[in-house]
Amino acid sequence: MTIGFIGLGRMGSGIVRNLLRAGHSLIVYNRTRSRAEELAAEGAQVADSPAGVCEAGIVLTMVADDEALTNVTLGARGILAALRPGTIHASHSTIGIALAKRLTAEHTSSQQTYVSAPVFGRPEAAANAQLIVVAAGESGALDRLKPVFDAIGRKSIVVGEEPWQANALKLCGNFMLALMIEAFGEAFATMRKSGVEPRTFLDAMTGLFRSPVYEMYGGIIAEQRFDPAGFALKLGLKDVRLALRAADEVGSPMPFASILHDQFLAAMANGQSDLDWSSLTKIAARNAGLKE
Amino acid sequence: MTIGFIGLGRMGSGIVRNLLRAGHSLIVYNRTRSRAEELAAEGAQVADSPAGVCEAGIVLTMVADDEALTNVTLGARGILAALRPGTIHASHSTIGIALAKRLTAEHTSSQQTYVSAPVFGRPEAAANAQLIVVAAGESGALDRLKPVFDAIGRKSIVVGEEPWQANALKLCGNFMLALMIEAFGEAFATMRKSGVEPRTFLDAMTGLFRSPVYEMYGGIIAEQRFDPAGFALKLGLKDVRLALRAADEVGSPMPFASILHDQFLAAMANGQSDLDWSSLTKIAARNAGLKE
Amino acid sequence: MTIGFIGLGRMGSGIVRNLLRAGHSLIVYNRTRSRAEELAAEGAQVADSPAGVCEAGIVLTMVADDEALTNVTLGARGILAALRPGTIHASHSTIGIALAKRLTAEHTSSQQTYVSAPVFGRPEAAANAQLIVVAAGESGALDRLKPVFDAIGRKSIVVGEEPWQANALKLCGNFMLALMIEAFGEAFATMRKSGVEPRTFLDAMTGLFRSPVYEMYGGIIAEQRFDPAGFALKLGLKDVRLALRAADEVGSPMPFASILHDQFLAAMANGQSDLDWSSLTKIAARNAGLKE
Amino acid sequence: MTIGFIGLGRMGSGIVRNLLRAGHSLIVYNRTRSRAEELAAEGAQVADSPAGVCEAGIVLTMVADDEALTNVTLGARGILAALRPGTIHASHSTIGIALAKRLTAEHTSSQQTYVSAPVFGRPEAAANAQLIVVAAGESGALDRLKPVFDAIGRKSIVVGEEPWQANALKLCGNFMLALMIEAFGEAFATMRKSGVEPRTFLDAMTGLFRSPVYEMYGGIIAEQRFDPAGFALKLGLKDVRLALRAADEVGSPMPFASILHDQFLAAMANGQSDLDWSSLTKIAARNAGLKE
Repeated sequence: MTIGFIGLGRMGSGIVRNLLRAGHSLIVYNRTRSRAEELAAEGAQVADSPAGVCEAGIVLTMVADDEALTNVTLGARGILAALRPGTIHASHSTIGIALAKRLTAEHTSSQQTYVSAPVFGRPEAAANAQLIVVAAGESGALDRLKPVFDAIGRKSIVVGEEPWQANALKLCGNFMLALMIEAFGEAFATMRKSGVEPRTFLDAMTGLFRSPVYEMYGGIIAEQRFDPAGFALKLGLKDVRLALRAADEVGSPMPFASILHDQFLAAMANGQSDLDWSSLTKIAARNAGLKE
Repeated sequence: MTIGFIGLGRMGSGIVRNLLRAGHSLIVYNRTRSRAEELAAEGAQVADSPAGVCEAGIVLTMVADDEALTNVTLGARGILAALRPGTIHASHSTIGIALAKRLTAEHTSSQQTYVSAPVFGRPEAAANAQLIVVAAGESGALDRLKPVFDAIGRKSIVVGEEPWQANALKLCGNFMLALMIEAFGEAFATMRKSGVEPRTFLDAMTGLFRSPVYEMYGGIIAEQRFDPAGFALKLGLKDVRLALRAADEVGSPMPFASILHDQFLAAMANGQSDLDWSSLTKIAARNAGLKE
Repeated sequence: MTIGFIGLGRMGSGIVRNLLRAGHSLIVYNRTRSRAEELAAEGAQVADSPAGVCEAGIVLTMVADDEALTNVTLGARGILAALRPGTIHASHSTIGIALAKRLTAEHTSSQQTYVSAPVFGRPEAAANAQLIVVAAGESGALDRLKPVFDAIGRKSIVVGEEPWQANALKLCGNFMLALMIEAFGEAFATMRKSGVEPRTFLDAMTGLFRSPVYEMYGGIIAEQRFDPAGFALKLGLKDVRLALRAADEVGSPMPFASILHDQFLAAMANGQSDLDWSSLTKIAARNAGLKE
Repeated sequence: MTIGFIGLGRMGSGIVRNLLRAGHSLIVYNRTRSRAEELAAEGAQVADSPAGVCEAGIVLTMVADDEALTNVTLGARGILAALRPGTIHASHSTIGIALAKRLTAEHTSSQQTYVSAPVFGRPEAAANAQLIVVAAGESGALDRLKPVFDAIGRKSIVVGEEPWQANALKLCGNFMLALMIEAFGEAFATMRKSGVEPRTFLDAMTGLFRSPVYEMYGGIIAEQRFDPAGFALKLGLKDVRLALRAADEVGSPMPFASILHDQFLAAMANGQSDLDWSSLTKIAARNAGLKE
């Protein structure tokens, strides 16, 4: 298959490499061209604009946020105007449900198909084809995308027929992760004020939950390894915001997400914008009177 | 070793069986004598009162709550008065840190040693020697208890030298579990109002967290199998209360525990006292306007 | 002075009458023309479109929400295109700070001046010239508007030079009111479950706070007079949402506003959209297991 | 009437003076005797122990907390043992409902009558006979106490026949006050980050609520006059704790009280224990990244 790909950050580059490995032809675009050149050495063709990848029948996008996706899709030289009828735009980005609904409508008007296919996994998971892909959209389009999802992840899940449903699920999943982080923050603070080592509590929790995610995040938090960020706190705030908007739109109160949002704002005001999002736990520590 | 054991509910009976299997001699007591008789058939000796198990140098207790432990320890015919100097009382119950401090002081005054050794695990884990034991107290006593902990669990963790520290850890661990339950509740409600099946979300979450605990609780909640209770909601409320008191005493704000407490109260007021504590999720569903 | 006025709901009609009484000439527009006709009988001139009121050098708007204000200002036959340079648009509506910033920029581009002048007070206060006007914008424009504010309110406050600051203040004020409502809800629920009459508690609170606002809302809530609505719950939700967005934008966590938002969502899901916003208190009552 | 009085802090001294002014005979006791001597000069008789005031048929107590009231009532030389049958103990202290129930039972066993009569008002209100008295207990006893309540307050309210009900009401009233403080904290923080002066916001709020309580607290907070404390933050925490326990006991979730409790704990951990309880607002300011 020939596949267009836009957005070659740490996540996107890993995905592209796995698609190349699986034997697909790739035309790639990145705002900072140097990242695209690296992939050219591995067999990808490089385009000069988002529109330049559109001769492929399938275009995948993996960009930072709603604004970036709006730009590459609806902006000047964006893909909406360049894609032919009958083609597919699948977005892997974590975006809000309002934008997903808008893109669905716009692509439909242009006789194209929009699919939301956000992924769970950090950059290493992208590099190792270990992502979890949650996809929603027309079933015909999902069928065509199946080989793509198989090449980049360890599991793919069909969420529904409305693209925005996949984004809602992804946002709820990030909510589950952020909640686990805050939970560790409050529990570690109480443990430390009880004279118990964070490592001891973590040992019990990894024994209890037997989850590699608890083990990884618990370890980062116990050792306060927040810099460099695996996933920046400001992006975590963005996702909690989008989760709250999704919940608001469907009319579902999420008090834990609300409190999370406030903790994230406090962390931003405390200068933690570019630290790992698990540094959220510094707020619980500070509120308990702990130094660092 | 000869071991006294008080409290033969589903947890206690499983523990006793594993101790018998490991070759220890057991003298057991239970308020409802019939449960003790069952174990007599398997080799345990039956006592008529808490005091009756005290000829053993080590007494283990596994009772329902602070009040029950206060009664078997400090009440008439309780173990405090019956234990000889140099003996050990190890409590597996989930109790508050105030009671742990009181028992430590009382046993010390009587030249006995008190150890807190609460456990993580549901009745099946107790039956299969798969508990996680978190123990705190004098190191000499913990050494003597090691063969006991090895016989009943898959992992034992030394928390510190102050018995109450183990109780604080256990309460924080239960907080982590309750938080996961509420998180599922809020996320499932948002998913359902987005037209996404709970099973689909659960599928993504078990893929993401790869935790048997998420899988088990997520399944119970997705299918609303709340009756009979594995762990009753009223006991969950009790534990959240004790966690908040512990956090208050050490001066650590836990906003998520606070919100949990309110959700538990709403669930109690909604008649869910004897359902499984994971039925807490019915409150999030109701607040989103979902029927059942 | 000749004044254009758009938006003749219960608030707007009261304001217009007081301006007429103060001797000003009014040109008014309302989407539903019949409400404008009523005022024609009292001396106002009626226009056919928002643009039609723009020959006046000052245009005041009092419409339902961001969308309505966007339409009358930026829509076809809106006031932005119709106002001459050097004129003033003062908005009394409760809107978000994002829209206030946008209107400021748009009017400035057209050499007009935008002022935000939201008001505190229910329809009776508007009718009796008892509003509190909180205004922000260029000081020259505020000076020109002073006779207007004096004619419609009992107090006017200059908030700052950036119009959005007045909207931020208004949203924080509505937050204070909503908080008082929820506080009554939680306290009344606890009182009722303690066997204490709401009226008895209210008696103590009016004695304590000596505030007519506490007395009015406390009375409505104690007697559950939620229908017809003085201010609909769905509008209260809108304002809490806008307050949270303002707080988010300036980076100020507001945990009470967050929890309020969740309670409002629960009330919406419970069918209370068109009841008075003080019916928010039904959620606290329900969570305490009280019928009605 | 001859009245015994225990507890001559700033509140108690003011009350005693007003009782003397009203023509009653007073026998007073205070742990620190010097405060009693001052009142002797004004006509009170001084006793050497709590028991020493009991020859009066009515004993009033106004002490710091549950522990102090337990001591003067149930301790050695306490009033329970010293009071004759048919006498009344009326407690003005802010205590928990559990202690109120216990005192009711103990006094009833001794054929005495216990009344809870907590008061609203700061020391100046006590000095000026401007307290609000909320009383609960047997109606006969309340009748006998009426002249007392009339002499010390501007309003007295009968809450019910169970003494603890008055304590529940008092705790809910303090919750309303604490909530107003936190509301000011969040709103001021958002205003300051919006470039709006706290005084400007306060001006609008006193215009809106027209409450002397809003005016007083708003002023203290706007000017950060937290030292010396009118009412210490640690006492505010105590009252929120008691309110949450009361709510827990009657089964009424109070999410705002829960969040308040966490903010108070954070303020304690931040060293604000002895500042005025309105310094709670420093936590919201800090979470918004504001210095002081």
